[in-house]
Amino acid sequence: MRRSRFFLPTLRETPKEAEIVSHRLMLRAGMVRQASAGIYSWLPLGFRVLKKIEQIVREEENRAGAQEVLMPTIQSADLWRELGRYDAYGPEMLRIKDRHERDMLYGPTNEELITHIFANSVKSYRDLPQLLYHIQWKFRDEVRPRFGVMRGREFLMKDAYSFDLDFESARRSYYKFFVAYLRTFARMGLKAIPMEAESGPIGGNLSHEFIILADTGESDVFCDREFLEADVLAKDVDYGDDVAVAGVVERFTSLYARTDEKHDGAAFAAEVPEDRRYEGRGIEVGHIFYFGTKYSAPLGAKVALPEGGESEVHMGSYGVGVSRLAGAIIEASHDEAGIVWPDAVAPFDVALINLKASDAACTAACDEAYAKLQAAGLDPLYEDSDERAGAKFAEMDLIGLPWQLVIGPRGLQNGVVELKRRATGAREEVSLDSALARLTDG
Amino acid sequence: MRRSRFFLPTLRETPKEAEIVSHRLMLRAGMVRQASAGIYSWLPLGFRVLKKIEQIVREEENRAGAQEVLMPTIQSADLWRELGRYDAYGPEMLRIKDRHERDMLYGPTNEELITHIFANSVKSYRDLPQLLYHIQWKFRDEVRPRFGVMRGREFLMKDAYSFDLDFESARRSYYKFFVAYLRTFARMGLKAIPMEAESGPIGGNLSHEFIILADTGESDVFCDREFLEADVLAKDVDYGDDVAVAGVVERFTSLYARTDEKHDGAAFAAEVPEDRRYEGRGIEVGHIFYFGTKYSAPLGAKVALPEGGESEVHMGSYGVGVSRLAGAIIEASHDEAGIVWPDAVAPFDVALINLKASDAACTAACDEAYAKLQAAGLDPLYEDSDERAGAKFAEMDLIGLPWQLVIGPRGLQNGVVELKRRATGAREEVSLDSALARLTDG
Repeated sequence: MRRSRFFLPTLRETPKEAEIVSHRLMLRAGMVRQASAGIYSWLPLGFRVLKKIEQIVREEENRAGAQEVLMPTIQSADLWRELGRYDAYGPEMLRIKDRHERDMLYGPTNEELITHIFANSVKSYRDLPQLLYHIQWKFRDEVRPRFGVMRGREFLMKDAYSFDLDFESARRSYYKFFVAYLRTFARMGLKAIPMEAESGPIGGNLSHEFIILADTGESDVFCDREFLEADVLAKDVDYGDDVAVAGVVERFTSLYARTDEKHDGAAFAAEVPEDRRYEGRGIEVGHIFYFGTKYSAPLGAKVALPEGGESEVHMGSYGVGVSRLAGAIIEASHDEAGIVWPDAVAPFDVALINLKASDAACTAACDEAYAKLQAAGLDPLYEDSDERAGAKFAEMDLIGLPWQLVIGPRGLQNGVVELKRRATGAREEVSLDSALARLTDG
Repeated sequence: MRRSRFFLPTLRETPKEAEIVSHRLMLRAGMVRQASAGIYSWLPLGFRVLKKIEQIVREEENRAGAQEVLMPTIQSADLWRELGRYDAYGPEMLRIKDRHERDMLYGPTNEELITHIFANSVKSYRDLPQLLYHIQWKFRDEVRPRFGVMRGREFLMKDAYSFDLDFESARRSYYKFFVAYLRTFARMGLKAIPMEAESGPIGGNLSHEFIILADTGESDVFCDREFLEADVLAKDVDYGDDVAVAGVVERFTSLYARTDEKHDGAAFAAEVPEDRRYEGRGIEVGHIFYFGTKYSAPLGAKVALPEGGESEVHMGSYGVGVSRLAGAIIEASHDEAGIVWPDAVAPFDVALINLKASDAACTAACDEAYAKLQAAGLDPLYEDSDERAGAKFAEMDLIGLPWQLVIGPRGLQNGVVELKRRATGAREEVSLDSALARLTDG
């Protein structure tokens, strides 16, 4: 994509309304624009990041054996009345009357609907387990939306639901998602730590929040420093091997990691040596929990058993904040100059910067490099405009692509281009072919 | 994907509520389930088709030079009040009050919002033209939703908007979308005919509906039979070549093609020889039109001109009914036994049918074929269950994958498998390797 054609309305000034760095940078980098309070439009740069995050989530759900569906945003209140949740849910639920004065709502979550779909479709223990997920927009009418896409009203979530014959089997499904979440966040360049969370009345200790460490996080977190040093989150796992999956989960749950909600100072002191105690702040990006037959019993989600009779299925739910992650990644990865995208979620692979567009030889060399980058399967943003070099560098630092390939008349005389790694600022002068080889190595 | 693991709740009976064939087949094939009136959940089979349709639309928009954004589903009424559309829009608009009693709405369309984004982002003629699109759920509160996803309340649309300096340039953008639509529908295996549509008060003849011929269509259509015989809809075009693009448009607009709204019997008789006059019914799957400065003038979408001063931009809008297409394709492509998917939108490439799962040799051969199909880059649905053969054939015909690869003990003794083309019913007995070669040829 040529910068001169790309719809990228970056801002020089920092918008006043933005309280946290990700919100400021997303506005300045032209990723999003507020449509109304807590509701955003995603412009091309932001949309690319959102799609990359979504695709990583999708691939890891599929790898764990989940199947994708898509439930609607608008649901009937009748469905929610069956379990009394229409009245019980707070003012965060957006309630709507349609033209026939029927009560509808913008789904804040989907337990009822997915349980209905399951109950009408699956009748036998032989068709279990079922892991179903969808990636859909939700609405939560926050009193005071803020922090940009981190706490917006309309937001994109992945919600998965598991259906199993009994607790033991439900735990195996839970473990699969636990591992899938480790992989999902690690692939995005994040260190997301699974922390014990409130498990509600069902118990069973099967409830974890996945938390990214960031100073601007909404929760105080306490954990063993081993989590910070461990670099095995993205470990490859055979999901068909229950023992291996359980082993990963046991390893990660054996270390202390809790948010303030569940924190126990005495246990922290007893279980974690002083020099390994980490206290900080974190952002929740995922939550998994087992809730047994809470929905399946009242909604009649039962399967026939091999020995005759029927049994209500055991369920769990597994959420990832897809649009929130765009902000969370920036909170975890930025510097004074702007965003520093991890490779896997970067909107483009590399910024190709033409230092002097008015110089025919320089532009010819850039055009050639652009064609070669594309031919190599890379997705470059080609800064081909006649802006001055300083403005180009500032903007490309702001939008944070992993690499910058800088071509100017002076370097060309010596047969070199400059390759800069955005994260470290490290620069080297190399031949164009060496630069291409470096970039295609990954 | 193994059938035994695939969430595919097909139905034996035809659901009573379904009035048209696509609705019946989508329910029977387990593609969708109604969540409430006119609102559907997409199950894995339907979701796969929806994603393929969406991806073809996306690729052709990108090829034409449009850039993808994503606007929210919920909009502020204030935005719509600026042009008086909040009050003028009928009861199809889903009106909502949020917790602060602010008027909101579920977007039935996006002219105001995209014009605002443009007006706040683009200031100079140098940044024109801009072609922006998004693929998002919309809501239209139909009095009597019916025909399944063909006339639902919540539906997925692609909406594009063009921003140009003047009429001449706007027409070039219009022509690009005209050609992009020809390509988009042709890639889905559809013959979508561009028909003159009402152009509203702006005039200029730049308004076309793209109509698929189908007996269950909502409109009467009248056109030259040359459209039916022409097989050049997917012609490759260089969008940078304005003359070539205009040439394609002129060729398709020189032939008579109108829906009943614009039909003129005398002109039809005068322009089209009797033996080439086609009358039938059609389904609208796309609509493109130019509307000048209708939104840009009141919303202040202006650019600075090279000679000084400012000018309001000329706009057009371009819609494709993405979820509707899933139904429309079935209306255009089915038989007594079920759906007949065109290759490009099929949920899987091929059904691999194990005729006797209890036979170890047969299952071993099927497992091997399954692995080979996947290794060849194909996406097979492997019917590995112990159902009887007749039920397997019926279900695979119902869900309509383009090919069926049937492996049974008798054929294996002779070293052959059966390859069936769903559309024609043609079968041949060939070696497994020959079948694979045929399938990978496309």
